Parts: sequence; C-alpha cells; structure tokens
Amino acid sequence: MVRQQDTATNETHIVIIGAGFGGLQAALALGKKLPDVQLTVIDRTNHHLFQPLLYQVATAALSPADISTPIRHVLREQKNTVVIMSEVTGIDVAQKRVLMRDGSISYDYLIIATGAHENYFGHTEEWQPLAPGLKNLDNAREIRRKLLLAFEQAEVETDPERVQKLLTFAVVGAGPTGVELAGAIAELAYKSLLPEFRHIDPARIHILLIEAMPQILGSFPRSLSKKARHELQKLGVDLRLSTPVEEITTDGVIAGGEWIPANTIIWTAGVQASAAGQWLGAETDRAGRIKVLSDLTVPGHAEIFVLGDTATLMQDGKPLPGIAPVAMQQGRYVASVIERRLANKQSGAPFHYRNKGYMATVGRAFAVAYIGKVRFSGFLAWILWLLVHIIYLIGYENRLIVLMQWSWSYLRFQRHARIISRPERHE
Amino acid sequence: MVRQQDTATNETHIVIIGAGFGGLQAALALGKKLPDVQLTVIDRTNHHLFQPLLYQVATAALSPADISTPIRHVLREQKNTVVIMSEVTGIDVAQKRVLMRDGSISYDYLIIATGAHENYFGHTEEWQPLAPGLKNLDNAREIRRKLLLAFEQAEVETDPERVQKLLTFAVVGAGPTGVELAGAIAELAYKSLLPEFRHIDPARIHILLIEAMPQILGSFPRSLSKKARHELQKLGVDLRLSTPVEEITTDGVIAGGEWIPANTIIWTAGVQASAAGQWLGAETDRAGRIKVLSDLTVPGHAEIFVLGDTATLMQDGKPLPGIAPVAMQQGRYVASVIERRLANKQSGAPFHYRNKGYMATVGRAFAVAYIGKVRFSGFLAWILWLLVHIIYLIGYENRLIVLMQWSWSYLRFQRHARIISRPERHE
Repeated sequence: MVRQQDTATNETHIVIIGAGFGGLQAALALGKKLPDVQLTVIDRTNHHLFQPLLYQVATAALSPADISTPIRHVLREQKNTVVIMSEVTGIDVAQKRVLMRDGSISYDYLIIATGAHENYFGHTEEWQPLAPGLKNLDNAREIRRKLLLAFEQAEVETDPERVQKLLTFAVVGAGPTGVELAGAIAELAYKSLLPEFRHIDPARIHILLIEAMPQILGSFPRSLSKKARHELQKLGVDLRLSTPVEEITTDGVIAGGEWIPANTIIWTAGVQASAAGQWLGAETDRAGRIKVLSDLTVPGHAEIFVLGDTATLMQDGKPLPGIAPVAMQQGRYVASVIERRLANKQSGAPFHYRNKGYMATVGRAFAVAYIGKVRFSGFLAWILWLLVHIIYLIGYENRLIVLMQWSWSYLRFQRHARIISRPERHE
Repeated sequence: MVRQQDTATNETHIVIIGAGFGGLQAALALGKKLPDVQLTVIDRTNHHLFQPLLYQVATAALSPADISTPIRHVLREQKNTVVIMSEVTGIDVAQKRVLMRDGSISYDYLIIATGAHENYFGHTEEWQPLAPGLKNLDNAREIRRKLLLAFEQAEVETDPERVQKLLTFAVVGAGPTGVELAGAIAELAYKSLLPEFRHIDPARIHILLIEAMPQILGSFPRSLSKKARHELQKLGVDLRLSTPVEEITTDGVIAGGEWIPANTIIWTAGVQASAAGQWLGAETDRAGRIKVLSDLTVPGHAEIFVLGDTATLMQDGKPLPGIAPVAMQQGRYVASVIERRLANKQSGAPFHYRNKGYMATVGRAFAVAYIGKVRFSGFLAWILWLLVHIIYLIGYENRLIVLMQWSWSYLRFQRHARIISRPERHE
C-alpha cells in the first residue's frame, strides 16, 4: 500500500504528474516561489529524460545515463517536495484524488504534464512492435540494438538478398526527430561501423527517410528545409518525399506503392497525447491534446492545469508546437498562477509563448535554425545547436561528459556506446 | 547461413573463442607477430567487457558503455582479423571445426578463452533467478535496477516489515567481488540515495555480506583481510562470517540457520568454468576447468590451447588464480607458442605466471594490496588500484570518461548512472 499523502494539516498540496520538461520546471519554480506548500511529483520512471538527444543514444554516441538525471536528485534541495515513482491510472476530479496503480493521493492543485507518445494513426497494435518510435530509453536501446546487430549479422551472411535487407534502415517521418535520426544513422553506418567490418559492401547500405508530405522539416521555412535536404543527401540518405507508408511487416515496408525489404524500421511520423484527456473527460483535439484555457487550466476545473505535449492552446491563430521550450515556459507560468491564487492576488496575464526559435541538426557539423525572421544554417548553426543542448542538459556532470563524448565523436568518428544490449537468448 | 571461413589457400587459420582478457591479448599479439595468418575471433557479444569494474555499473557509478569496447574496434587495424558475433555450441576436434548456432568454421589452431560463470553449487535452477551473479552487463543492470527500485518502493511503503525487507541487501560470498560490491552498495545507500529520500529511516537499511569461511578475502594475507573487514564495518556493512547459505527464496535467505528477509540477494560465492571441457571431452577439475599442459594445450591436442578461467594449471604447488593478469599473460604466451611452431622453432619454455600482485577496494578511498611480500592498505593502495584499473581499461575515451566520473563521484558522492531500466510493465 502506498503511503497516503493526505496531511492532517491545512497545508496546500500541489501534485505534479510527469517530470518531463514542463513538470520539472513547474516543480522547480514552485519550490522556489512557495517553499511552504506541500509538493508531490509523480513519474513512472525515476529519471528526467532529455528527449531531444534520444537519437544520440539510439545511434550509440551517448549512453542512456548521459541524458537522464534522477528526478529526486534534481529536486533534492526542496525539502517540501516528495517524489513518487508510480504509474498514474486515473483522476477522481470530484474527490480531487490522483489514482495510482498502488494507492491514491489527494490534491488541492493538480498539474498534468504527462507528454505524448508515438501516433501510429490506427495501426498501433500491428506497427508498434515492428517499428519502434523514439520517445523513451527503451526505444533508444532497442533501436541501437537493431542497428548494431544488423551489421554483425550482415558480416557473416552470404545470401545477397538477406544482406540487402539487413542493411536497409527506414526512418518514417521527416520532422526534426526523423531528420536527426536518419543523419546520425548514416554517419554511424558509413563513418564508424563500415571501416571495422571486413565483408560489408558499402553499396549494400541503404538508409531511407520516408515522408508523406512533399518536404522534410515541414514546420521550417522552405529555404532551410531545402538546405537540410541537400545535407542529408550528401550523407547518403535516400529521401522519399510525398511517399505515404501503407504497410509495415516483419520483412519491410510498403511506401508509395513500393515494397522495400528492411530489417530496421523506425517510426517518427506523429505524436499522440497521453491519456490525460480520458482521465478528465475533457475535450481534446485529434491528437488527444486537452484544449486548455488561456491560463492553462481545464475548462470547469480551475484547480487542474495541463501543459506541454498533453495540452493544446492557440496563439496567433496557430496551435503552439510540441517542443521543450513551450512546456518549460508553461511549467513556470503555472507556478506563478498558483502563487498569485494562494496570495489572493488578481489573476495575471494569459499564457504567452515567447518564441525561442527552432533548430534541427543534420549529421555532425550541420544544423538549420531560425528565430523569428532570422535564418541560418551550416556549421555555425550546428555550434549554436550544440551549445543550446548542452546548456539545457540537467546536471553539470552530464554536461561535461556529453561535451567530451561529442568532442571525441567529432574528432575521431568514434562512438562511445556501441553495446548490443539484451541479446537474443539462445539458451 | 553463416559465411564459411574455409579458405582455398594454404594460409594458416587461427580461431579464438572469447574476447575477454585472455582472448583479446592473444588476438592482439597474433596480429602483431603473425600479420599473414588468417585470424578469426568469435564472441557471443560484440564487446570486450572490463569485468573488474562491473560492480561500479551495478551500483550506478559507471554506465555499461564505460567498461565495454566493441571487439572489432579494438582489432580494427589488424586487416587479417575477422570478428564474428555468434554463440559457439561445440567443437568437432576430429574435423577441426568450431560449431556455432548458425554455421561452422574450420581451424588449424584453436584458442579457447571462454571464461567462467557463477557457480551455485547444485542450486543453479532455483537460486540463479533469485540471486543474480555479477559476471556480465545484464547482471549489472539487473542488480542496479533492484537496488534503485527498492529505495523507490520503500519511500512509499508504510508496512514496517516490508520496508525492512525492501532495504535489506544481502551479498553472498566475500571474495574481492563481494567485498567491493558490498562496500559500493553501502556508499550508494547511505551517501548518494538516503539524503534524497524523505521517508526512509537510515536504521532500516541493512547491508549484509555473508561468507561461509571464517574470513573475508580468503586468498589475501590475514592482516589485509582484517583491515578490509574493519573498513567494511565502518561503511555500515553487517559481516556474517562462517555463515553458509542454506536456502534462497523470493523473500529472503537462510544463512547459518537464521532467516533473513531480503529483497535483493546477490551471488558472488564461486565460479564455474564455461562448457569448453564438455565440448572437448577433456579432463577438468571440480569447477569445470580444463587441466592443460604446461604449454597451455589440451592433452592429446597440440593444436588446441585453453587459457584464463576455463583452464587450470599448477604453479609452485598451487593452481593459478582466476584473475585478469593470468589470462592476459597466457594470451600473449599462446601467441608466442604458435609463432614458434609456425617458424618450426623448438618449443619454448613452459608458461610461467609473473605475479603482478593482488588488490581489492573497499569503498571510495580504501584498498588492500600485496605484491609478493609487500603489503599495503588505505588511501595509497586505493590510488594504486585506481591507476591500475584506469590504465588497463581498453580505449582512451573510456579511460577519460571513467576518470571523470570517478572524480565526480568522489568529490560529490553523486552517482552518474542512476537509471532504473527495464521497469516492470503494468500496461
């Protein structure tokens, strides 16, 4: 039985579900602004994950621990904060209780920051086991294992068709994640692995990036998208634009009517919000995001806030994008709203996202970025990308280690974390 | 079907099974001495594992990749060397073929360096699933998960008996691995984790080191064993000497007649050689080690060498110990024997182990060591331990990263790799 967080005192109890970018920022801001309230953070894992670098774990450049920090370590100085590792199963809005698989907990204010997962558009059951997404460490480890094992198996395989299939890697979806992943796979394959194998013909390696829309990085300005496309092609990635995926099997993928035998298929083609909309019975958009009010509360529930990838809010006629800076600003905003309420102040301004720009990297020395109307691409954009990602990495030690491993990869084309984990069992 | 390594040419083909300390040294020496022979290295994983630091992975100080290097990366400059990731299932000594699960391969010379695994002394089936050993990365990840998850569960548990059980960690076997692991668990528990939990009573944490013999580090001189014992006790480890384990269940362990409820039990009480003795039908000792001749060949098979933990050889009236320096010296020795044979030289001197000394570390600033009659203990011995282990780490990048992570852990009591991987599924 889980410890019940119901206090006998009159202390306000704020519960945060999810310690991603949004939830963690809310927790840190509340710890600073309101050291006397009681704060509980619930997450189903024990660590905050720096998702933007997951593709580097999947391609063996970084270790899982390099992009993960224990949540309770980040919040260790906040003596009013309790961290619980558990899975939330629902919310009793009438009783104001969060239901977990091994207990429940009451709240006065609730902040839901439970993120999103891959959207297979009605094919989750058939396609997810065959084409993992890239949303968590298990995904990244699984992709790493598939990539590295494919080369090991191709080294000893004599049937040319099987070799071709083993060395075909298909990434579905050319948003930032797909573009970054395809570029990193190309570098892993051609630069790091190929020189160490004796029997692999480079001509057999085939890295595809398959996209239903006519351009990659659809949310980026045309000119940048075009530059990223050229860079990907230079790395050896075969781009298939305007090519919807029709079927995925254990042997390959059908895309744009063409049958492509492929050993490794990775799905980065869309996201679906967490189940929070169902927990609350709240109105959602097609991707399951809860339509929140301008103060990020759920209509009819001034005590429940939703933020990040689980919420949708219009700004300047467009929904806010599902990226880390939005979630982080929302986390801090929610903390300030609760602070005002507890101080019986008038409600403040509605949430407004201050655009920090967008960036995506292609390979080891090229990125595209734009902030407002300013656009840049190439090596300098990549340096900017590098700095931003290292600065936002939680934990000083992680920053140093990641910087070191990147320097090493950059100088030597070597990859640190080439472990084939969870090998198939043959015992 | 695996590529068949049978050459039409008359080139000599040397096959090495296992890329641990012994196999890898043999491969490197043969690459240097005999660049014109054909060399194949077979291992069931893709990486060489620095086993002496596995306990640091199990206690979240290092990441798996920090102590692993891809075998083919180590051997990449040897153009005559092919690395195969596969599982060996047997040896056809008459046909001189190594049988793998997906093919077979012929040899002129065979070097078997397949190591050892945990010995549960007749209880493997019942005890192994409950009390993992510490021989590979899967073990280390499993132990790490158990340790970290126990604290997470204890934080929300209200039943005092269950809390006690969750926070009881029993290490069975007080050889160097058990001593190092128990010390590292104590530091992880008291120094790194405890300050970050809100509901855990330090008095409930119970770390046991259970040993059937009357002293820890049985192979060390008495005086050093005593010093290590005091140091372990200072760290908070409860030593149970002369206490044989009688039973292991899902709920705990019976040792010396006492029932000890324990959530985490780790087995480091003995080793069993790999199945190579059965493959060859060769004479072995009780632990399954093949009794090799003084040139490390198998009696009756001058073309088959066995080394490291899979072999046993007497020197000065005692069997050589199963430690990395023995395996490494044997690997280089075997390379020189094969070199002499191919050059039609007279056979050289029998193998003689040059003793490099023994060391074990207890916690973060104390070690015991002896070389011949010289004995030392304390901080200086620990610095020596540190240097030796970093120098022998394969891969420059690994050395730098490990040194950095150790410095960080040492200065801050922080542990880098506190990921709970493979969480229980509740979907």
